[in-house]
Amino acid sequence: MSAPPIRQPIRILGIDPGLRRTGWGVIESCGNRLVFIGCGSVEPDDDLPLASRLLEIHHGLAKVLAEFAPAEAAVEQTFVNKDAGATLKLGQARGIAMLAPALVGIAVSEYAPNLIKKTVVGAGHADKAQIQMMLKILLPKAEPKTADAADALAIAITHAHHRGGALLRLKAVQA
Amino acid sequence: MSAPPIRQPIRILGIDPGLRRTGWGVIESCGNRLVFIGCGSVEPDDDLPLASRLLEIHHGLAKVLAEFAPAEAAVEQTFVNKDAGATLKLGQARGIAMLAPALVGIAVSEYAPNLIKKTVVGAGHADKAQIQMMLKILLPKAEPKTADAADALAIAITHAHHRGGALLRLKAVQA
Repeated sequence: MSAPPIRQPIRILGIDPGLRRTGWGVIESCGNRLVFIGCGSVEPDDDLPLASRLLEIHHGLAKVLAEFAPAEAAVEQTFVNKDAGATLKLGQARGIAMLAPALVGIAVSEYAPNLIKKTVVGAGHADKAQIQMMLKILLPKAEPKTADAADALAIAITHAHHRGGALLRLKAVQA
Repeated sequence: MSAPPIRQPIRILGIDPGLRRTGWGVIESCGNRLVFIGCGSVEPDDDLPLASRLLEIHHGLAKVLAEFAPAEAAVEQTFVNKDAGATLKLGQARGIAMLAPALVGIAVSEYAPNLIKKTVVGAGHADKAQIQMMLKILLPKAEPKTADAADALAIAITHAHHRGGALLRLKAVQA
């Protein structure tokens, strides 16, 4: 009889990008077990010029990456709404959110909002309250102070569930 | 009689951000004189995952910043079009374009497309051919190979004109 394979825990950083507030959440996934590590949000000063706000988001995420040393990262595929100005702002924050892990050599996966809801709650059209309720069950030690930090944890959980597929896709792209 | 003040040349980096192609142009502005220093474009591999493409844009701009050591940077205020998907992509590239100079402590100014056209050609609704014709007059040594590199030079010229320190007489040159 051979021993079952030892699963190494994988540390995952989820990011919910936004120019006003960028949420982040770190979990560890080991087999079918999830462990809460940390969460929070980066809130740049609204009065600063755009480049400085983007720089604050970058520094905030760089600090999280240095402190928690995740092995993989995931970012929400930003919802494209009807307000082009808001989409542009979100795009800028999202560029920073994807660059920060890439700069330290960490692969960044993307997940659609509906897949995140479906993974965490079981329904693609779940509301924020349902997501937060499921977070309490899945990560009982997590106490996210902002909706963005909660969303970032939901993104990290989604990656924990789907990372096999995402990593295979990455390898195919690299090959 | 006092001697006229000595004007130090200011090296300016203009960036025209885009996910497929990010143009850059470096000029020196000294009093009412403009000198072409360099231009080009960063073209990330389309087949790479988004984070890797953003990383290539970042590395390309970081290389330009290290090679040419500009003192100030300027980025076009991206045109918000009706295609939200295109606006999001542009926003992501624009976030990277603004972060790269900010990361090395360089202030980044933003200019609306109409102001760039008005500064370089004299009319807010000038077309690309008119801009390229004026570039040949203002920067005779510049031979931009792409429209994005030409636009980046136009952005740098706009900053030279509007940054406040230098009093350029572009209109006299145009006459």
